[in-house]
Amino acid sequence: MLERLRAIVGEKGLITDPGEMEPWVTDWRQWRRGRALCVVLPATTTEVSAVVALCTAEGQPVFPVGGNTGLCYGAVPESGRPDRPGIVLSLRRLNRIRAIDRATGIATVDAGVVLGDLHEAAARGGRQFPLHLGSEGSAQIGGLISTNAGGTGVVRYGPMRDLVAGLEVVLADGRVLSDLAGLRKDNTGYMLRHLFIGAEGTLGVVTGAALRLHPQTPNTAHAWVSVADPAAAVSLLMALQDRAGSCIQAFELVSASQFELVRRHGERVRIPFAEIPAWSVLIELGSEDATTGLNAILEEVLAAFLEAGGIDDAVVAASEQQAADFWHVRHSVSEANKEEGIGIVHDVAVRPSDAAAFIAAADEVAAARFPQAKTQVVCHLGDGNVHYILMFQRDFWASLPDPEGFALEVERAVHDAAARFGGTFSAEHGVGRKLTEELERLADPLRYELMGRIKALFDPRNLMNPGVLLAPRPA
Amino acid sequence: MLERLRAIVGEKGLITDPGEMEPWVTDWRQWRRGRALCVVLPATTTEVSAVVALCTAEGQPVFPVGGNTGLCYGAVPESGRPDRPGIVLSLRRLNRIRAIDRATGIATVDAGVVLGDLHEAAARGGRQFPLHLGSEGSAQIGGLISTNAGGTGVVRYGPMRDLVAGLEVVLADGRVLSDLAGLRKDNTGYMLRHLFIGAEGTLGVVTGAALRLHPQTPNTAHAWVSVADPAAAVSLLMALQDRAGSCIQAFELVSASQFELVRRHGERVRIPFAEIPAWSVLIELGSEDATTGLNAILEEVLAAFLEAGGIDDAVVAASEQQAADFWHVRHSVSEANKEEGIGIVHDVAVRPSDAAAFIAAADEVAAARFPQAKTQVVCHLGDGNVHYILMFQRDFWASLPDPEGFALEVERAVHDAAARFGGTFSAEHGVGRKLTEELERLADPLRYELMGRIKALFDPRNLMNPGVLLAPRPA
Repeated sequence: MLERLRAIVGEKGLITDPGEMEPWVTDWRQWRRGRALCVVLPATTTEVSAVVALCTAEGQPVFPVGGNTGLCYGAVPESGRPDRPGIVLSLRRLNRIRAIDRATGIATVDAGVVLGDLHEAAARGGRQFPLHLGSEGSAQIGGLISTNAGGTGVVRYGPMRDLVAGLEVVLADGRVLSDLAGLRKDNTGYMLRHLFIGAEGTLGVVTGAALRLHPQTPNTAHAWVSVADPAAAVSLLMALQDRAGSCIQAFELVSASQFELVRRHGERVRIPFAEIPAWSVLIELGSEDATTGLNAILEEVLAAFLEAGGIDDAVVAASEQQAADFWHVRHSVSEANKEEGIGIVHDVAVRPSDAAAFIAAADEVAAARFPQAKTQVVCHLGDGNVHYILMFQRDFWASLPDPEGFALEVERAVHDAAARFGGTFSAEHGVGRKLTEELERLADPLRYELMGRIKALFDPRNLMNPGVLLAPRPA
Repeated sequence: MLERLRAIVGEKGLITDPGEMEPWVTDWRQWRRGRALCVVLPATTTEVSAVVALCTAEGQPVFPVGGNTGLCYGAVPESGRPDRPGIVLSLRRLNRIRAIDRATGIATVDAGVVLGDLHEAAARGGRQFPLHLGSEGSAQIGGLISTNAGGTGVVRYGPMRDLVAGLEVVLADGRVLSDLAGLRKDNTGYMLRHLFIGAEGTLGVVTGAALRLHPQTPNTAHAWVSVADPAAAVSLLMALQDRAGSCIQAFELVSASQFELVRRHGERVRIPFAEIPAWSVLIELGSEDATTGLNAILEEVLAAFLEAGGIDDAVVAASEQQAADFWHVRHSVSEANKEEGIGIVHDVAVRPSDAAAFIAAADEVAAARFPQAKTQVVCHLGDGNVHYILMFQRDFWASLPDPEGFALEVERAVHDAAARFGGTFSAEHGVGRKLTEELERLADPLRYELMGRIKALFDPRNLMNPGVLLAPRPA
C-alpha cells in the first residue's frame, strides 16, 4: 500500500515517520488523537484521484484534512478498525490560485489555498473574498467548504455555501466531478454542489472551487451601542435594515458578563463605555461608494432610538484606530474566556426574531440546572447565531467525577432550548466527530434517514471520513 | 382511484370533466397537449401527502403544476403509458401566506401563493421579495422554486435558489420533509433543500417554503447607455461594480436589431436615443438609503467612460416616468418579437467575462449556417444570461419541410457555441420536456449519471413528473 502510494505522490508526498505524523493525527488543540497508516500529500487533482481510487480498492478509509483548524474533530483520523487505519489526505500542496475573473467576480482556486492568501489575491484583483474568521492564516478553502464556514460577515455575504459558485470533487471511486464554470444562472437539473458543501469530507474530497468575489467596501462606519436587552438589539437591527440593510457587515451582540471578561483578561483592550452596559452591539456598515454617508446613517438611526428610549448610549468610531479598537474587543473574547475558566461554548442559531426569547430560555435552564456557571453571550445577531457560554471555575471542574459527561449534559440542555425555537445546535462549527450523537438525537428522523441514503449512494463502502457527521454504522 | 381521490380532497378538489380539464393538460401557449386521469386540487399539505401516497400505491404518475407559465412543457402531463395516465396535481388551493417575519427577513408561504401576492404581502411587511418576471401575476411559488426561476433582478439578489431559506416537500412515498426553520446558519449535515430547487417536480412536490425577504430600495436611478460593443458593456459593468456593485439591480444589454423591433412593433414606446445605437445597456441602481446619490454615481461613472471613449451616449432618467419608459422598452421585447416572425430564443448563460466572445461566436455560427435569420441579443449581462435570438420570416418558416427539426438544429448550434465557453443551454427556463435530449447530450456524463441515481433514490418507481428533466428511461 505504502509503495503504491509513493508511486503516485512521490517521496515528498508521503509521511510515514510516527514523529512527523504526530500533528496530523490530532486536532490543533490536541484534545483528541487518532491513528493512520500514513499522511499523503498529493500535488494535483489527478494524484488525489489516484490516491482515493487506490484506497477504495484496498478498503482503506480516507481522512481528508485542510488547515486542521476545526473545533469538532472532523479531521482526526479514527477508522475504528485496527486492520484498516486509513490514510490522512492533506490538500496543502494543492495551493494554486488558478484564476481571478474580475468581471464575473469569480476566483478559481485549489482546495489547499489558505484563506488569507485568497484575501490577498482578491485584493490584488480589485475585489474581496468576504469570509473572515480567526483562523484565516491557516484555514484552507477545501476545509472551509467542507465545513460551510461562517464568521462575522455572514449577515451580509452569507456563509461559505453562498460564496461557492462551483466545485471540483474527487468521488469515492476516484472519479472527478468538476463544475468550475462559475455561472450565476444554470438550470440544468439537480444541483449536486450543495451536497458536498458542509458534508465534512464524507461524500468526496473537494480539490478545487470557483468562489464568488465581491466588490471592495473601503467606506465603513462602526458603532458600539448600549442596549437595554436583546429585544432592543433586534429592534435596532430592523431599523438599520430599513435604512441601509445591504450595508450591514456585522451586528454582534455581547452580554455584560462577556464584556467584563474581555476587560479583565484582554490585552490592550479599550472599553468604549464608562461603564460596561448590560448588553451592547457592535455594528459595522460598509459600502463600495465613498460618497455614501455611513456615519450619518448610523447617527440618524441611533439618535431616533436614543430619543425613543430603545438604547442607552452609543459611540460611533471617529477614526480607523477607534474602529480597530472596537473589533479588538470582539476578537479578544476567545482568549479572555480561556483565561477565565472552563467555558462550554454553544454554537446555536435561531431566527433573529427568536434570539431574545432563546437567550431568556437558556438563562432559565442554566440557572435551574447549572447554578455553578456564569453565563455569557456573544452573538452574531444579524444571522441569529448565538454563542451561548456557560463558564465554570476550574476548581469546580476539577472536582467533577465525569467532566465529559457533565459537559454533554450542559450541551444537551442548551441544544434542547434552541430546538424549542426551531433552532440548530450547530450553526457554523459543524458536526465532526463531536456532535454525531446530537445530530442523530435532534435531526428530523426523515432527514436523517435521507442523509444516510445519500451517504450510501456516494460512498457505499463508508470509506470517506467515516465516523464524521453520521454516527458509525453498526457493522 | 377517482373515488379514493375524492375522499381525500372532496368534490371541489377534483376535476374529471374533459372540457374543464382542457387548460390543465396543455401548456399556456397550447403548443403541447398531454393527457391525465383527472386534476386534483388539494387544499392542505396533508391532502397532498395523501394524494401522492395513493398515486404511488396505484402506480399512477403525479404531474404537479403551479401557475402553468413555463416555457419548456414541464407541466404538461405525459406518462407515455396509456394504462397509467397519472394525475395533474395543482397546488393553487395551497395559497396561504403563513407568516412574515420582518426581523429575520423571512416569509413562510404555501406553494400555491402567486408571486404578485407575495410581493404585496412583503411590501405590507416593510420588505420586498425581489424576484420579478413577466408572469408574476400567475406564476406560483412552488413552480418558481421547482424551476429555479430567474428574471432581471438576479444580478443583485440571485435566482430563486438564493431566495429559498427552507422547504416543505412531499416525497414520492407521501412523507413530508419539512425544514421551514428559516435559519441563516445551520451546519448539521447534507443540505437536501437544493436538490428540490430546480428539480422540476421530479423528486417530490414542493408544498411550502421559507423565503428570504430583502429591505426595500425606494431610492433608484436608471440609465440607457449606448456602448460600442458587448466588450465595452462588460468594462462598464466592472467600473460600476467598483463604485456601487451592491446597488446594481439590473444590467441589460440590447442589440440594435432587437431595439429596432421594439420600435417597430412596440406600443407607446419612447426611444431614449435619437438614433438606435448598435448596442445599449439599461442600468438600474437601487438603495435602501434615500441620501445616497445614485444619479451622481451613475453620472460620474458614465462621464469617465464618455471621456475615455468606451461609450457613445448616455441618458440618465430624470423622472420616475422616464425610468418607467426605459423599462417599458425592455419589457416590450417579447411581444415585439412575436409580431415580427418566428424567433428561436435561446436561454444561454456564460460568464459575463465571456459574453462578448460568445456573442461573436454565435453570430459567426448564425451567419454561416442560418443566413435566412436576423440575429438579436437581449441579455441579462450582469449575470451572463444571453437570450440569443434567431429571427426567421414567416414565409421562410412556412416553406420548411420539418420546422421542428430545423428549430432543433438551430438550437443545437447555439448551445454548442455556448458550451465552448463553459456555458449552459438553460440559464433560467429549465429543461422540462423540451430539452431533455439536450441535457443528455451536453451534460457532463458523470453528473448525468449521478442525477439518475439521485432520481432513483427519491423516486424509485419514476412516478414524480416522469419524462421531465431526465429523458424517459428505457423500460
